[in-house]
Amino acid sequence: MVKSKRFVFARQFEGPPKESDFQLVEEETPELKDGEILVESLFNSVDPYMRPYTRRLPTGITMIGEGCGRVIESKSSDFPVGTVVMHRYGWCTHAVLDTKNKDPQNIIRKAPADYPKDLPLSLLLGAVGMPGMTAYFGLLKLCEPKEGETVFVNGAAGAVGSLVGQIAKIKGCKAVGSAGTDAKVAWLKEIGFDAAFNYKTVSSLDAALKEAAPKGIDCYFDNVGADFSSTVLNHMNLFGRMSICGSISTYNDNEPAKGPYPFVTILSKQLTVTGFIVTRWIKEWPKGMEQMVQWIKEGKLKYREHVTEGFENMPKAFIGMLVGENTGKAVVKL
Amino acid sequence: MVKSKRFVFARQFEGPPKESDFQLVEEETPELKDGEILVESLFNSVDPYMRPYTRRLPTGITMIGEGCGRVIESKSSDFPVGTVVMHRYGWCTHAVLDTKNKDPQNIIRKAPADYPKDLPLSLLLGAVGMPGMTAYFGLLKLCEPKEGETVFVNGAAGAVGSLVGQIAKIKGCKAVGSAGTDAKVAWLKEIGFDAAFNYKTVSSLDAALKEAAPKGIDCYFDNVGADFSSTVLNHMNLFGRMSICGSISTYNDNEPAKGPYPFVTILSKQLTVTGFIVTRWIKEWPKGMEQMVQWIKEGKLKYREHVTEGFENMPKAFIGMLVGENTGKAVVKL
Repeated sequence: MVKSKRFVFARQFEGPPKESDFQLVEEETPELKDGEILVESLFNSVDPYMRPYTRRLPTGITMIGEGCGRVIESKSSDFPVGTVVMHRYGWCTHAVLDTKNKDPQNIIRKAPADYPKDLPLSLLLGAVGMPGMTAYFGLLKLCEPKEGETVFVNGAAGAVGSLVGQIAKIKGCKAVGSAGTDAKVAWLKEIGFDAAFNYKTVSSLDAALKEAAPKGIDCYFDNVGADFSSTVLNHMNLFGRMSICGSISTYNDNEPAKGPYPFVTILSKQLTVTGFIVTRWIKEWPKGMEQMVQWIKEGKLKYREHVTEGFENMPKAFIGMLVGENTGKAVVKL
Repeated sequence: MVKSKRFVFARQFEGPPKESDFQLVEEETPELKDGEILVESLFNSVDPYMRPYTRRLPTGITMIGEGCGRVIESKSSDFPVGTVVMHRYGWCTHAVLDTKNKDPQNIIRKAPADYPKDLPLSLLLGAVGMPGMTAYFGLLKLCEPKEGETVFVNGAAGAVGSLVGQIAKIKGCKAVGSAGTDAKVAWLKEIGFDAAFNYKTVSSLDAALKEAAPKGIDCYFDNVGADFSSTVLNHMNLFGRMSICGSISTYNDNEPAKGPYPFVTILSKQLTVTGFIVTRWIKEWPKGMEQMVQWIKEGKLKYREHVTEGFENMPKAFIGMLVGENTGKAVVKL
């Protein structure tokens, strides 16, 4: 039995989440039953999706999210002490997990057996975890980028966007991205984006897109939504593909964002627009993770992490990530 | 040389098209050059797409559209006198066509060699022509309806919509449609729609959809767009497919219609939304036409035509079709 801390989702967010919307709870972990393991968190993840997902959830639950931890007690021969696992138990320092749970959306995943010793384990929550799989499958399965095409991604300096642009380059495409600070834009160019701009300082998004993607956009990987997407639509090429991954510009809205309907443009340009949640490809994740590890080892994929130290700072890390304080993946180190 | 009449697109439409936006011109057809044929129109088509397409066209041209006619003079051995052809020469009584034109979007197509003698030739502009191919490929290729799924189509009593619902039934789906008069709704039920409602008289579109499609909508074939589609989105099932075929509710708007952006719903329900223009499958049309003829012969596909008599009435037929005077395909008989 150990002392465990967790954050409770105490209040429905109104507008931007506040630290007071979370409640820190300390309690003893229960004794393990057969098939259970006790996991000590090494890293916890903060991701944009947590903001909209909580809308549908009751307050009082452990705040949702993925963690990477190490088994410190075990009543499962499949998960001996020392095993590194990723789980969805939420924001906690320790978690008692039932290894017999077979829900594919909520399964306990082991770190790949051949995970390189010189890579940080935090990548299992980033480039080699959920955000990595989001970029990999969301771009390749839905946009099917072809050599020579232009791929545009917004939120490009984030955990997912920075990988999308680099995967686009690996596939022989022109990669264009937007981000919200000049430092982020500089980093995007450093990691190989062909063009990038600060959407907050350009005089017009329309003009910036025209300059950055003069041949139009074939593949659009959307993390932002609403008015931003409405403008990007004007730059899509015939038979373009749009992969709708996130809508971070709207997550704090109480009312749905309004603007010109996109249906006529989707029709006249014969676009395909697909929304996705990455767990739809969960069975293919091992293949995707293997590929990401290989590209990282080959130096084709660069990553950056925005690490917040200390479990107590999880709400701060989450709030900061939502306003774009991070470059690359935002994680909390315990 | 014969006297030919044609309608000129004389003025850009402002709001609903008016008869005075067209100009009737009479002239002698020129002498045929080698490879040319003179076609006398039997039927001309009026279709919703003509309204938005003219936006991009200069005034002064022959009003666009498809015709079905018979060769009455020929300087092409491939198209002897008597051959029935479909062409895109526009609103005219006679057309001199160059059979050497190989533009696939604008090609002169012959009636299928095995076209049944007991079927009206006007169907080559309807169920066995462009609208038929629109329903066939737009539904099957993009929505991929599976047995037991619910297919919803609006503008369901129109040339395309009435076929979409019947093809859905052939594929073992539940077919739901909406139309704008009680008589149209009655006809939809007669031809096999499982549920249909008059969208103009229901107290709420939301409630009508809930009642007609209580298990939600898997495939949405959209002819209407804007607010209508915005409401249908709320009824889409997870992994639903939307085929964007038309946007008739917006064709007379000068400004794009506005409302809640659909991106978040597309994301959370993991929808695939595809806009299309049916000529993208032009090479597969012969196969589609053969299938439509077969289903008609087997009695699995019923059609209705709204026939306006007399070339002079083409503007009237077009204007009437845009406000939904037709049930089934609107054609003009010359």
